[in-house]
Amino acid sequence: MVGALMRRPTIVDIAKAAGVSKGAVSYALNGRPGVSDRTRERILTIARDLGWVPNGPARALAPGGLVGAVGMVVDRPASELGAEPFFTRLVSGIEAELTGSGVDLLLQVTADVESEAAAYRRWAAERRVDGVVVVDLRESDHRTELVRELPLPAVVLGGPEGADGLPCLWTDDAAVMHEVVHYLAALGHRNAVQVAGPECFRHTGARAAAFAEAAREAGLKSAATVHADYTGDEGTRVTRRLLAHRDRPTALVYDNDLMAVAGLGVAAEMGIPVPDELSIVAWDDSVLCRLVRPSLTAVSRDVEANGAQVARMLTRLVAGEPVHAVESTRGELVPRDSTGPLTES
Amino acid sequence: MVGALMRRPTIVDIAKAAGVSKGAVSYALNGRPGVSDRTRERILTIARDLGWVPNGPARALAPGGLVGAVGMVVDRPASELGAEPFFTRLVSGIEAELTGSGVDLLLQVTADVESEAAAYRRWAAERRVDGVVVVDLRESDHRTELVRELPLPAVVLGGPEGADGLPCLWTDDAAVMHEVVHYLAALGHRNAVQVAGPECFRHTGARAAAFAEAAREAGLKSAATVHADYTGDEGTRVTRRLLAHRDRPTALVYDNDLMAVAGLGVAAEMGIPVPDELSIVAWDDSVLCRLVRPSLTAVSRDVEANGAQVARMLTRLVAGEPVHAVESTRGELVPRDSTGPLTES
Repeated sequence: MVGALMRRPTIVDIAKAAGVSKGAVSYALNGRPGVSDRTRERILTIARDLGWVPNGPARALAPGGLVGAVGMVVDRPASELGAEPFFTRLVSGIEAELTGSGVDLLLQVTADVESEAAAYRRWAAERRVDGVVVVDLRESDHRTELVRELPLPAVVLGGPEGADGLPCLWTDDAAVMHEVVHYLAALGHRNAVQVAGPECFRHTGARAAAFAEAAREAGLKSAATVHADYTGDEGTRVTRRLLAHRDRPTALVYDNDLMAVAGLGVAAEMGIPVPDELSIVAWDDSVLCRLVRPSLTAVSRDVEANGAQVARMLTRLVAGEPVHAVESTRGELVPRDSTGPLTES
Repeated sequence: MVGALMRRPTIVDIAKAAGVSKGAVSYALNGRPGVSDRTRERILTIARDLGWVPNGPARALAPGGLVGAVGMVVDRPASELGAEPFFTRLVSGIEAELTGSGVDLLLQVTADVESEAAAYRRWAAERRVDGVVVVDLRESDHRTELVRELPLPAVVLGGPEGADGLPCLWTDDAAVMHEVVHYLAALGHRNAVQVAGPECFRHTGARAAAFAEAAREAGLKSAATVHADYTGDEGTRVTRRLLAHRDRPTALVYDNDLMAVAGLGVAAEMGIPVPDELSIVAWDDSVLCRLVRPSLTAVSRDVEANGAQVARMLTRLVAGEPVHAVESTRGELVPRDSTGPLTES
């Protein structure tokens, strides 16, 4: 190219041509924060015009060099994720934090925990990521041991029990569940069912234990937990079965918003008025809860903010800073039109 | 480590120790398909025990070497993505195709098309990905020119108009829109409004043009298109405005499912019976459409299958195979309880 340098251009050449500091060029070429997107683009364009050949991947070969990527594996069958707002919101929050920093998010959707472990091994072996966000802690979870062994810097969303000492961002689900159950009891409900997530997850166990304990405290006559897989279809099936029962519950607490929307649909289909004869509470308050009618009472958590916070924790961990367990803002019960005093029939 | 080789182990050493072929070791170490996850894990464990130091990132330095990653940028404000099933379904489909092949998906959520362009530049400059999936073609779209210049192998989801000759997976939205409008006309509707996506997108333009044309053909008295941003909140606002009108429409066609759910909520809130006085059609049929009551008539597309197909096309393109424009299976109108004959008042 006419006008291009005959030798490989140096950072100094690029800095001179772009009229910026060497540091700015280095930030731009290495995809690090410290320059605006506009400046980064301009520097990259000039670098290319000068005949600069990127050798980004070589960076990771340097001892202690960073790849500039973090990973997250979502271990749910892809077909179940379709309409589940939680993970989109979490990813959005992580991205909001990473955007502009030149750090990429590698996302994997796997069908089981073994495939998830394989992904961590491969990422570590091939140095694909500088660290990972681990979600959905399980009752017997080998992933914490695995990431420690590989080693792969990791921040857990969940815990602190089960996080195995890894840095984690956790929330006190039990306290919020107590609030939910006592609220339902105060409305006159004595027969409630929790439609929980899969039994294998620790957060499921924590919420179920709190549900049972709070129900005893509040003097409920009947308080069962049934497990479902978070999908709308299973939410529909389970709710239909519960509401077809002769001694049907008058209050249902769902572990996600999608199943709660499904439950509302079944109540409408069976002609059971909400909230007069049935109160419904969703856990996680996405826009869905506000869109449906009656609008859904929900436990609201700022999932996007949690995503951003966990990304910040991982960034600090990767940079070698000490990171510990952090309690996130507690979920909040937001009463809407799907809960109300029980109308005795 | 006692027992480990004093020199850097070769593929032969690892194959011998693992009792597998050299080929299998190569597949496992390079994250390529050809070995089961279980075998891959065993080989990686043995390789590590032998003192093997991964140098995965060096692979991309070889001329023609592949990085083993593809990228997708979703250019929507993170806050708007929360409950939108389309992208989760698309990502799920892409992942379903990539899973097991050792190819990673880099996902970025950006707030504008300039940031998206910056991501492509950075990915190309740093050799982060072997190719990208480009979504949401715009009326005046510089991205197709950009990926060609960088160069960054790309497959477009959309087109073929506007795909600028890039390989693309497109769908005939116009034909389906004609079907929707003629169906509504046959039910007696003469005043319909399309609540469309943002005006900047080509698919919005194609659907809006088809809506207007079909409305003329079918003899509708009034057929307007209003634009919204796909969010539930804006779907709510727009619908409330439309239904508060003295000469309100009797049929609404929404460009996504989330806004249609919002529309259904507003109709309930305003006491307008669906479908007796108002028919509602959603575009894209996620589980949401089946969960709400009345269930939503929708244009059903297999978004997961499209994701898988576009990932396959990109994989072939990256491998140097010829890839052309492909028409995907046409969307299908699935009538449910939200559409019906207009009851004259």
